[in-house]
Amino acid sequence: LTFSATTFATQQNPTPAQVKALQQQALNSDLSYQLVESLTVEIGPRLPGTVADIKTVEWSEKQLKRLGFDKVYREPVTIPVWKRGDAKASITAPFPQNIVVTALGGSVATPKEGIEAEIVRFDSIEQVEQASAAEIEGKIVFIDPITERHRTGKGYGKVVGARSKGAVESAKKGAVAVVIRSIGTDSDRFAHTGMMRYADDVVRIPAAAMSVPDAELVNAMLKRDLPVKIKLHMTPAHKGEGTSYNVIGEITGSQYPDEIVLLGAHHDSWDEGTGALDDGAGMGIVMATGAIIKKSGIQPKRTLRVVLYAAEEIGLIGAKAYVEAHKAELDKHKFALESDFGAGYIWRFDTRVNDSALPAMQKIADALAPLGIERGHNEASGGPDVSMLPNYGVPVVSLQQDGSDYFDYHHTPNDTLDKIDPVKMKQNTAAWVTFAILAAAVDTPLRPIPPKE
Amino acid sequence: LTFSATTFATQQNPTPAQVKALQQQALNSDLSYQLVESLTVEIGPRLPGTVADIKTVEWSEKQLKRLGFDKVYREPVTIPVWKRGDAKASITAPFPQNIVVTALGGSVATPKEGIEAEIVRFDSIEQVEQASAAEIEGKIVFIDPITERHRTGKGYGKVVGARSKGAVESAKKGAVAVVIRSIGTDSDRFAHTGMMRYADDVVRIPAAAMSVPDAELVNAMLKRDLPVKIKLHMTPAHKGEGTSYNVIGEITGSQYPDEIVLLGAHHDSWDEGTGALDDGAGMGIVMATGAIIKKSGIQPKRTLRVVLYAAEEIGLIGAKAYVEAHKAELDKHKFALESDFGAGYIWRFDTRVNDSALPAMQKIADALAPLGIERGHNEASGGPDVSMLPNYGVPVVSLQQDGSDYFDYHHTPNDTLDKIDPVKMKQNTAAWVTFAILAAAVDTPLRPIPPKE
Ligand SMILES: [Zn+2]
Ligand SMILES: [Zn+2]
Ligand SMILES: [Zn+2]
Ligand SMILES: [Zn+2]
Repeated sequence: LTFSATTFATQQNPTPAQVKALQQQALNSDLSYQLVESLTVEIGPRLPGTVADIKTVEWSEKQLKRLGFDKVYREPVTIPVWKRGDAKASITAPFPQNIVVTALGGSVATPKEGIEAEIVRFDSIEQVEQASAAEIEGKIVFIDPITERHRTGKGYGKVVGARSKGAVESAKKGAVAVVIRSIGTDSDRFAHTGMMRYADDVVRIPAAAMSVPDAELVNAMLKRDLPVKIKLHMTPAHKGEGTSYNVIGEITGSQYPDEIVLLGAHHDSWDEGTGALDDGAGMGIVMATGAIIKKSGIQPKRTLRVVLYAAEEIGLIGAKAYVEAHKAELDKHKFALESDFGAGYIWRFDTRVNDSALPAMQKIADALAPLGIERGHNEASGGPDVSMLPNYGVPVVSLQQDGSDYFDYHHTPNDTLDKIDPVKMKQNTAAWVTFAILAAAVDTPLRPIPPKE
Repeated sequence: LTFSATTFATQQNPTPAQVKALQQQALNSDLSYQLVESLTVEIGPRLPGTVADIKTVEWSEKQLKRLGFDKVYREPVTIPVWKRGDAKASITAPFPQNIVVTALGGSVATPKEGIEAEIVRFDSIEQVEQASAAEIEGKIVFIDPITERHRTGKGYGKVVGARSKGAVESAKKGAVAVVIRSIGTDSDRFAHTGMMRYADDVVRIPAAAMSVPDAELVNAMLKRDLPVKIKLHMTPAHKGEGTSYNVIGEITGSQYPDEIVLLGAHHDSWDEGTGALDDGAGMGIVMATGAIIKKSGIQPKRTLRVVLYAAEEIGLIGAKAYVEAHKAELDKHKFALESDFGAGYIWRFDTRVNDSALPAMQKIADALAPLGIERGHNEASGGPDVSMLPNYGVPVVSLQQDGSDYFDYHHTPNDTLDKIDPVKMKQNTAAWVTFAILAAAVDTPLRPIPPKE
């Protein structure tokens, strides 16, 4: 009996040869690319609350079923609906020129006649926080931080506060609008959108981003010691609430079907590009991961749950809904991770598990090593949509992809399919497949996870 | 007397040491960059017939005077005035999506309600010419040529016929509009504008370009064997005639003041970028060339005539006016050349002179060699605005610059100052300075020039 139980357990664990074969199948498969191709061609931009958002939900269910997932279902998510409208801006003094801007997500409109005012420039949101109301009152605040390029994307986190908090901090001091240098590493004449926030007790002023070349233009004028005036016309609108859906597909676990390895991506996107990198790529990768494993006939020991989150861009709305809906089973989540950083080459494997489980993680790292992936640290964040899960004790993992050029395209019209390298995407998917099949087989307890630094 | 005449002639010719010193002064000077910075910041886009066009004429005269040119004057040019208006387009079937388009220069508007029709795709303008009316009638012709990247820019010439002739050839066969893949080497979501032409006896249909990623999107839909429909809204307008000016600055020749070395660039630009590469860079280079020589105190043996042409973009209008105005002295034009290909590194020196003058050209090539410039062929075109001059016997020269990335930005909103590398621009200007001072001293007859291949 003991003997037969052991045999049984062994049968559940993929052999090294099986893992190797799966890895090779993923390297030979263009399924993840085909999925993002289908998504971007047949649907395109997927702003929450649009027709395309619901089409995406339907597309996702259809694909997951076609790919052989054992269970496919959706869960409703109540979302705020925001429409972009138009955004136009020009420098009106000292040297009139049009500039390229975009409304930040969630911004209110300008009055119909627009807003025209002198600008006051700050290097960073921190500088705005330290400024006096006298400097800012009646002006358009121009926050001008430079996004540094890094493989990890860490330059983004350093400056994105200008986008998220710029309106509130500027309005507190009497600004009439805020316009930021785009949070982006490119020097192309695209403005980068992305979510901004208001506070209940602070007046809501319009918030926009200008392209990097336009920020350079404004700086060149400021260097001439002349007051610079900007005129801004924007017509975004809040349209109340709507419903979207988290879409979930599962490959049922053979031995512990109620234990879950959560493979996440988000199905919404901003509306100016086709959301190929953000996050069509992630959808393709996690859907293909489940599909390639399913097709191989090797059943994972625990359930692989692919979660395609709704409405990530506008404030992790789907992720919050998931936590609410699944609170009772969060202790059954063995791992969670998300693909939401393009389709680049995966170069490092980070974890956040109990120290006692690090040897088990090393075994997974060893299986990833042939793909050129290094073992990283034990302070992984897991990705935006799973970022709340560690608060509930869920171990998270990051398959770090090279995002050196991710913020060149992020949240611009230029986030299109041609920016994805199908060869890199195969390696990326192979890493996910390797991780997923091995993660589902990890019997070592992973909790409690280490506290955040 | 013979002795003294020889001495006199020798004094007019710059010594190798003087040439070397001038070259070094140019390499140390950022004047050409400062000029294009001033132009793009203080004026920006310079579409013929706009207020900015006239501001540019005034700016040019002011700068040429400030830089010490001996003579500065303008010559009127009658120009057609065209306003861009808006351009919007979407794919309406099989998968509705917005696409990024721009009106081609000179296009008529669509009807107010737009034009919606199925598209018919062709690889090239040649394919359209060969197609039957049955294939095209009632459709929007989509011409989809790929622009190859080359240091010389030769990929452009191979495909630009789709832009210039697409409307006429399509309309002849009953097309309702023409939309081309942008003539450009990038894969950014910018559409490339540029001039198109109508014929008197062919109906005028709207003509637009879509960005390369959008052309890829359309192709992806066509691959699915579904009819693709596009809807196009454009509001450009022809506004009759206006006046612009060729602006001319001269450094008077010491020995042969009526003989001319013509250094050209064009002062107009398309209206969506700031015309930094096309052709603010060229303006900076030729203006700085004259200025650096003037400042050095070495007077050129023949007159250096900097010609800043009007309205190149809309059909070489300024260049044609120059020929008309200067017909009588074209035989006194020793050389002509233009800078109109960005601000890249100069790598080759091409000429079109009588074979008997090739040894004299080699001497100039020897002086350019320390800048890393090779001696090229004797079939130079000279540049667009001087391209008519060989018909009048004028020898032309090309200082070939590396234009590998020129067609990434050409005629898009992305043609902005940040695309210019100030270091490369110094080398470029040094080549012009070297050529100009030596060209003015060439006594060898250069005519008759060899016939075109
Ligand atoms: Zn994302
Ligand atoms: Zn995003
Ligand atoms: Zn040009
Ligand atoms: Zn041009």
